[in-house]
Amino acid sequence: ENKARLLIKCPDQPGIVATVSDFLYRNGANIITSDQYTLNPDGGQFFMRIEFYCPQLGEKAEQIEQAFQPIGEQFAMNWQFVYVSQLKNVAIFVSNEPHCLMELLWEYQSGGLMANIALVISNHETARETVESLGIPFYYIPANKDIRKQVEERQLQLLKDYEVDVIVLARYMQILTSDFVKNYENRIINIHHSFLPAFVGAKPYERAYERGVKMIGATSHYVTNDLDEGPIIEQDIGRVDHRDNIAKMKKIGQAIERVVLSRAVKWHLEDRIIVYQNKTIVF
Amino acid sequence: ENKARLLIKCPDQPGIVATVSDFLYRNGANIITSDQYTLNPDGGQFFMRIEFYCPQLGEKAEQIEQAFQPIGEQFAMNWQFVYVSQLKNVAIFVSNEPHCLMELLWEYQSGGLMANIALVISNHETARETVESLGIPFYYIPANKDIRKQVEERQLQLLKDYEVDVIVLARYMQILTSDFVKNYENRIINIHHSFLPAFVGAKPYERAYERGVKMIGATSHYVTNDLDEGPIIEQDIGRVDHRDNIAKMKKIGQAIERVVLSRAVKWHLEDRIIVYQNKTIVF
Amino acid sequence: ENKARLLIKCPDQPGIVATVSDFLYRNGANIITSDQYTLNPDGGQFFMRIEFYCPQLGEKAEQIEQAFQPIGEQFAMNWQFVYVSQLKNVAIFVSNEPHCLMELLWEYQSGGLMANIALVISNHETARETVESLGIPFYYIPANKDIRKQVEERQLQLLKDYEVDVIVLARYMQILTSDFVKNYENRIINIHHSFLPAFVGAKPYERAYERGVKMIGATSHYVTNDLDEGPIIEQDIGRVDHRDNIAKMKKIGQAIERVVLSRAVKWHLEDRIIVYQNKTIVF
Amino acid sequence: ENKARLLIKCPDQPGIVATVSDFLYRNGANIITSDQYTLNPDGGQFFMRIEFYCPQLGEKAEQIEQAFQPIGEQFAMNWQFVYVSQLKNVAIFVSNEPHCLMELLWEYQSGGLMANIALVISNHETARETVESLGIPFYYIPANKDIRKQVEERQLQLLKDYEVDVIVLARYMQILTSDFVKNYENRIINIHHSFLPAFVGAKPYERAYERGVKMIGATSHYVTNDLDEGPIIEQDIGRVDHRDNIAKMKKIGQAIERVVLSRAVKWHLEDRIIVYQNKTIVF
Repeated sequence: ENKARLLIKCPDQPGIVATVSDFLYRNGANIITSDQYTLNPDGGQFFMRIEFYCPQLGEKAEQIEQAFQPIGEQFAMNWQFVYVSQLKNVAIFVSNEPHCLMELLWEYQSGGLMANIALVISNHETARETVESLGIPFYYIPANKDIRKQVEERQLQLLKDYEVDVIVLARYMQILTSDFVKNYENRIINIHHSFLPAFVGAKPYERAYERGVKMIGATSHYVTNDLDEGPIIEQDIGRVDHRDNIAKMKKIGQAIERVVLSRAVKWHLEDRIIVYQNKTIVF
Repeated sequence: ENKARLLIKCPDQPGIVATVSDFLYRNGANIITSDQYTLNPDGGQFFMRIEFYCPQLGEKAEQIEQAFQPIGEQFAMNWQFVYVSQLKNVAIFVSNEPHCLMELLWEYQSGGLMANIALVISNHETARETVESLGIPFYYIPANKDIRKQVEERQLQLLKDYEVDVIVLARYMQILTSDFVKNYENRIINIHHSFLPAFVGAKPYERAYERGVKMIGATSHYVTNDLDEGPIIEQDIGRVDHRDNIAKMKKIGQAIERVVLSRAVKWHLEDRIIVYQNKTIVF
Repeated sequence: ENKARLLIKCPDQPGIVATVSDFLYRNGANIITSDQYTLNPDGGQFFMRIEFYCPQLGEKAEQIEQAFQPIGEQFAMNWQFVYVSQLKNVAIFVSNEPHCLMELLWEYQSGGLMANIALVISNHETARETVESLGIPFYYIPANKDIRKQVEERQLQLLKDYEVDVIVLARYMQILTSDFVKNYENRIINIHHSFLPAFVGAKPYERAYERGVKMIGATSHYVTNDLDEGPIIEQDIGRVDHRDNIAKMKKIGQAIERVVLSRAVKWHLEDRIIVYQNKTIVF
Repeated sequence: ENKARLLIKCPDQPGIVATVSDFLYRNGANIITSDQYTLNPDGGQFFMRIEFYCPQLGEKAEQIEQAFQPIGEQFAMNWQFVYVSQLKNVAIFVSNEPHCLMELLWEYQSGGLMANIALVISNHETARETVESLGIPFYYIPANKDIRKQVEERQLQLLKDYEVDVIVLARYMQILTSDFVKNYENRIINIHHSFLPAFVGAKPYERAYERGVKMIGATSHYVTNDLDEGPIIEQDIGRVDHRDNIAKMKKIGQAIERVVLSRAVKWHLEDRIIVYQNKTIVF
């Protein structure tokens, strides 16, 4: 199609919106939606996401990007044009709990995920049949902390082979090394099964039960080197009461995990998320 | 302060955003937030709300508005500059259930309502003490359908005297005539105690109980001549179950009514609501 | 297992709880959970659901039921023992939107639905592959209003053959005749894609869009002869705004439909729902 | 009135429900609602709350309690009869943010809090006028950590004078000593302005902002010697996004704090809460 998104991050100063919208107008683009945010009106950081329509975009893209260069320099912008027709390649990592994977596959099938699911990597065989029945390659790579290095080398090679843009950890229960993470900065989306920062780390439902909370939650975030400390994309919660034991909490929690991860992935695919200083701006 | 909002409604066409943002830039204004929406990308209606900061706005306002005139004509705009420092005058109408009034007064006291509550009009004396203790004039005007005309004449006179901009019906249980309504088109905000369009009309909690619903709601909308059919601004709901009789439903419902009306009034005061074809766009 | 449920409906009078709990105690049963509700404390209807554990229940069941008979007569009870080990046979009816079916199958696979899905009947072929891959019989029965009678005859025969206890209409877009419905009173569960009683009938999302509501919902109810007027089991809602067109509303709505129907079916399977005068008591 | 509640905590064993309901029946009581819960079906702890109606309860209460004694001993029960007509005396402690106090007073006035608000104690003068206008005694007791001992002595004396049953910390920003707390075990209700266990301690909104969470919450709990670690009674949350600075988060949070504390207090007054091992059972 002829749709694209322009993403901008730069120090705030007068004239940005005027210059950018004038540029788009002169290049025959019509703005569909536009969102902006300034961290601090007095010279703070400025963020913008514009979705626009432009006839014959395919032919004109290169020329438009070139023409935008001086504007980018003038305002010291971090800028990027993203073309809606160029689907992102997604890799899904999963362990033995398939509910989040299933939700993503379901959204994929029903046209809700505008992406190409390039492959699924798992340290269990559980999901093979379902994945392959959709024509998606499935790679079983057993993993544990002793062979982490070899495992990640193999994973990285696959990600390269499939030209993967974004990795979704759909309840993948292995820790990634910082070497791995740095290859995909702000492009690895995890789902943590608690309302962060409550219950960072292992066994959050068990600890939620112990603490006697009345609500449990799930958090989707970008992965950084600090476990469960990356920029939060989305959270949601559900009610529990004293009758809910750990098994029931997990059941309730899984339904939350599914929707939270699914929302986060969709927003990433639509280029709605801008990361700044370990927080996200979600347009 | 030096803050203002520019509200625009016009047929969509290329160049609007570029022209408007360039205009603001040339006049020394810095955009704080900007929202836009197009009903239909192919030549549909275009809506925009820009909040901007401009030094010495007080002195420059008139000149800016004059300079904007040709742009407004060029794009066939319905446009308006609103100055944040000019607080809107609010009249609150209430009958004998004071919970919504109390919530608004509470928000007012704690700085959450950027407005001037000019007066409270009621067909009951219930709220007089509370209202007057805050230094707000209180008018007791008994009302029933036989004296509707005289009542409304007196009310309209008061609204004129106090230069009222917006009327909030905080559970005012009298029907307004179309003569009254047409004076304040899209400026009378009502709270209806049901999740519209369910339970239009009288006794919604009683009917919700009869129907055995599992959730009850409240709806804030602009008043039109069609009872409970005006443009919806905000809705919210709460859970009920078989143990909740009508009295408990009312209790649960009142808490919902309070927040829903309060949100709607705040959005109106911040000029976030644009009415179009019996629907609202809330930026 | 050795778990069962005792369901009671009778006129309220002193001594019911004492008599029933004494009976269970004398018969070696230990109460796990017990819920009761009286419609009106002054001689209204009394409802009770007791879940109990009883060693060697299989052998003792018949004798227990026999022994309970005089108590049932004494209090003019409508009573029933249900044995947890006897899974209910479920038939799922679906048309061409498979999201609700998928959710039920997913819950079924992951152990969340304590039932036997006996068969799926559809007037479209869409879901065949998925259903059969789980080893569940799939019957394609084309349907339209002209051949309703023959279609229902064939469906009823299948329901009889499979000894079906409960029918789930998982977005089955055909109206059932009163002849059909009377065979499965309070045992046909439907999902309606609106927050009933708002938008009864066809095209609820279209009408919700037209009305400009800020929330959409879904309602699960037992089917009666009055379209969308049966006893409501569960409802839930989701937020929409002016940016959401009908297609997006449907997407948001489908996620709500899935969870609402799934909850209703689970509660039915756990014998938590008692119907009384077109309302449900959900214990 | 003639309503009472019987609260029971004891090791689970067969026959409890039968014995207790038989006892109530023989003493002319009619059960209105009954809730029970067993922590672990195999000999765990058993909890029960029965609300019953009994004509001439005033005259018969003493005799009933005496007659229950042997049952209590037989099952090693921790038991208590509570009479609905005997309103609990409540003390509210508040500092300079009055929103939670206001909500409680509002509920009190509108008949939603079945209690006697005996006095309000504050380390600020802010709320005096509002409190005294309702005829409730207001005590200004300046407080800081250097004079904690004297302050608490004076507070304890007042609590004794007014025969206070339950203390509500409605945003009281002073730490209570363990000496103070032990006098009112499971009878001091606090509202913490975060979704515990996230953001234990000071400045939760500031830290929530720093962490970039997408939801903020509030938690009501009984006060123990471990700061913010007491048994949780109720929690709720609200959505925030990148546009919400700390001030806005506080505003959103205050609305949550109000309802969460208000619910917790109501449940306590209705004897719905049983504390067991640092968790609550809420019937």
